[in-house]
Amino acid sequence: MNNPQLTASGALQHLLSVEGLPREILVQILDTAESFCGVTEREVKKVPLLRGKSVFNLFFEPSTRTRTTFEIAAKRLSADVINLNIAASSQTKGESLLDTVANLSAMQADLFIVRHAQAGAPHLIARHVKPHEHVINAGDGRHAHPTQGLLDLYTIRHYKKDFNGLTVAVVGDILHSRVARSLIHGLSILGVPEVRVIGPQTLMPARVEALGVRVFHDMRAGLKDCDVVVMLRLQNERMRGTLLPSAQEFNKHYGLTAEKLALAKSNAIVMHPGPMNRGVEIDSSVADGPHSVILPQVTFGIAVRMAVMSIIAGN
Amino acid sequence: MNNPQLTASGALQHLLSVEGLPREILVQILDTAESFCGVTEREVKKVPLLRGKSVFNLFFEPSTRTRTTFEIAAKRLSADVINLNIAASSQTKGESLLDTVANLSAMQADLFIVRHAQAGAPHLIARHVKPHEHVINAGDGRHAHPTQGLLDLYTIRHYKKDFNGLTVAVVGDILHSRVARSLIHGLSILGVPEVRVIGPQTLMPARVEALGVRVFHDMRAGLKDCDVVVMLRLQNERMRGTLLPSAQEFNKHYGLTAEKLALAKSNAIVMHPGPMNRGVEIDSSVADGPHSVILPQVTFGIAVRMAVMSIIAGN
Amino acid sequence: MNNPQLTASGALQHLLSVEGLPREILVQILDTAESFCGVTEREVKKVPLLRGKSVFNLFFEPSTRTRTTFEIAAKRLSADVINLNIAASSQTKGESLLDTVANLSAMQADLFIVRHAQAGAPHLIARHVKPHEHVINAGDGRHAHPTQGLLDLYTIRHYKKDFNGLTVAVVGDILHSRVARSLIHGLSILGVPEVRVIGPQTLMPARVEALGVRVFHDMRAGLKDCDVVVMLRLQNERMRGTLLPSAQEFNKHYGLTAEKLALAKSNAIVMHPGPMNRGVEIDSSVADGPHSVILPQVTFGIAVRMAVMSIIAGN
Repeated sequence: MNNPQLTASGALQHLLSVEGLPREILVQILDTAESFCGVTEREVKKVPLLRGKSVFNLFFEPSTRTRTTFEIAAKRLSADVINLNIAASSQTKGESLLDTVANLSAMQADLFIVRHAQAGAPHLIARHVKPHEHVINAGDGRHAHPTQGLLDLYTIRHYKKDFNGLTVAVVGDILHSRVARSLIHGLSILGVPEVRVIGPQTLMPARVEALGVRVFHDMRAGLKDCDVVVMLRLQNERMRGTLLPSAQEFNKHYGLTAEKLALAKSNAIVMHPGPMNRGVEIDSSVADGPHSVILPQVTFGIAVRMAVMSIIAGN
Repeated sequence: MNNPQLTASGALQHLLSVEGLPREILVQILDTAESFCGVTEREVKKVPLLRGKSVFNLFFEPSTRTRTTFEIAAKRLSADVINLNIAASSQTKGESLLDTVANLSAMQADLFIVRHAQAGAPHLIARHVKPHEHVINAGDGRHAHPTQGLLDLYTIRHYKKDFNGLTVAVVGDILHSRVARSLIHGLSILGVPEVRVIGPQTLMPARVEALGVRVFHDMRAGLKDCDVVVMLRLQNERMRGTLLPSAQEFNKHYGLTAEKLALAKSNAIVMHPGPMNRGVEIDSSVADGPHSVILPQVTFGIAVRMAVMSIIAGN
Repeated sequence: MNNPQLTASGALQHLLSVEGLPREILVQILDTAESFCGVTEREVKKVPLLRGKSVFNLFFEPSTRTRTTFEIAAKRLSADVINLNIAASSQTKGESLLDTVANLSAMQADLFIVRHAQAGAPHLIARHVKPHEHVINAGDGRHAHPTQGLLDLYTIRHYKKDFNGLTVAVVGDILHSRVARSLIHGLSILGVPEVRVIGPQTLMPARVEALGVRVFHDMRAGLKDCDVVVMLRLQNERMRGTLLPSAQEFNKHYGLTAEKLALAKSNAIVMHPGPMNRGVEIDSSVADGPHSVILPQVTFGIAVRMAVMSIIAGN
């Protein structure tokens, strides 16, 4: 029971990965997020749950998009937000990761949002902060991106009401995707009976079946009768790499077109973590079409991040 | 009546350019700004008109100075402000302008402040946002910089009380200046009888007379009996360009000196949008002299931006 | 009595250097900081003393660490904080330091936090701002870093209760250190009877004895019976420079080890302004050991900055 994400009494202390979270915690987060969806539609989109708290956006790897979602969520909870782009600062003065965090902690931090190119960095930080301080992993290497996984789960629950009986396909570069990893763990914890991964052999992790998924290399076969299709972003660097012949070739086999989507259920939803490469992993007709819930994902993402922050650090 | 800046009932929905705004809207902005001038002189310089609103400073072209004025104005209205320097972010991930905006809009934005090197970008964004979202153009290419134009109008009204009977000269690089364009439209709408543009032929737009201005290539003739002299910034890149022999040459013919200013009315005011090139388009004796209202322009600029934001997005 | 830091009635107007401050002002700052230490341990770490005030973090030299401490302190006082990294902005448009400040001042600034590579820049700014505006020096060249000096004094008083009878050693690169300069002045004003500086001849200022200190080139002799040991950061550029043979050589002679520290009093405290070069000027066993008060210094630093800001600009 030595779970670094939970307090001794089983409450959420840090959010480091979806893997290892009890089902009740996941449900608590999704339920809390639901209550925040109302807040963000109000004229005054603010609640005082984190008033006077200091939230540090600690980005060791730049990501304006993810940083923005956390900054908005924290400000709507009335927190004080400090953005730190660490690549440009004391790391270059030879200060270690833990010294940097110890210093910020001495400034009476309450919450660290950590993005780092190295898998495990948020865990390392969580092991060294004080009991009243909290860490949220905003993406660490290829390891995890739990708030993205949670907003994906929220979106699926919102549109499908129930996880029982669903078939979910995750398509594309499974190998390098922390988004896929976080989502697959969450789907498993919440009892989705069939999770499929679809992609070329070169972009599949070794022993991917151990995650409890069915592997498809043929996209048409994999999409058959799916309720949910999650497209992954193809990183630009992969397109020029040795793992793929070309972006065009990838699009031909694994890009989501209206024609391929027709093989899924007629009420299937299409998701994407963004930013999209239109014409590579997804066609514009699908991205902007009636099955797409890509923009609602972003909206839910704010509510999910507000939920996680208020659960672990709320007054 | 299909004006993209106005709602169906004729209220201000977006601020994209001074051109095309009805006279009453201009007057409403100037009157509202006047009421905010009091706020910014108080001990507590804050009003709650935008509390809980999310304002995105969307700068596709860097401008610390303009970004700062909008950030201060929004914070004094109690808004939550998110600064996004887009050059350094998802644009580089190949995300399109409209996808970027759609994503931010899905985060429940209320107001986008947009600066872009391409003329028309704020209009494009305004056409795609939701009905409750608003766009303010903070400078697009050579096209428009309407809040600068409005603060210039505010400054003229403040010192001259009335636009009737005024002679206003705009001096320098008219060709590349969005500031000049926005101001000239505003002066025309508000009924200034004589607007002059002064500069070398190479820095005049083709058919500039169509704007309703009188063209002067001789600065002394152009300044004669003016009430208001607006100096434009000479961009550094022009000084080394093919359009001008040199900065020294420009200064000799079109730089504002105390001696040339003496040709204007004795109570003439001198304006400049900043930052100034002292010794190029304006001499320090004039910039810091008794006719200069260059720093009051900056002060009024905050009040004008507060006015525009509160009119289009206030609770 | 023409002290640029004080008003006509002797109150603190600007904080430019510890040098030249009356003893009563130093004590007032330390006492006020003590009252803020309680605030920062509360659940809601905010007081409304600077509500509606505009604080400009004016960093002409990047320093995420120092900027962050001021940003947190200002936000905990409920001020609006605007961060300006000036290297990347109008300075490059050829605007002068004073024009930049005059512009920000016209935006109704209340407080400028200034970091600049040139000694004297904050003084220059202080001479040109309006009577209700205030300047805090956040480090200017090799000259001064008064809030660091003040937090060092606060830390010493916190642990030693009284300045009378203390022996304080400052160790390392005295020549290039604004931290050392600010601290030594403060210790002298507050009546510390013996201040020692320890370091190689090449890193000692000429005529350092004029500051009222005893000079040691032998670290063991210098540490003998000290109450307080202040280690200075060795700048990376010095390690490769001509002033020092190497970092290893420096560590051997002037690095603080547990063995050398044993020569000081048994209840001596060890301080460092951070970020530390572990294994160069200080060993990890000392940095993380029982004598180290390096992290409490950071905590006190927030309270000291809140104290200075609220004394000079509070409602």
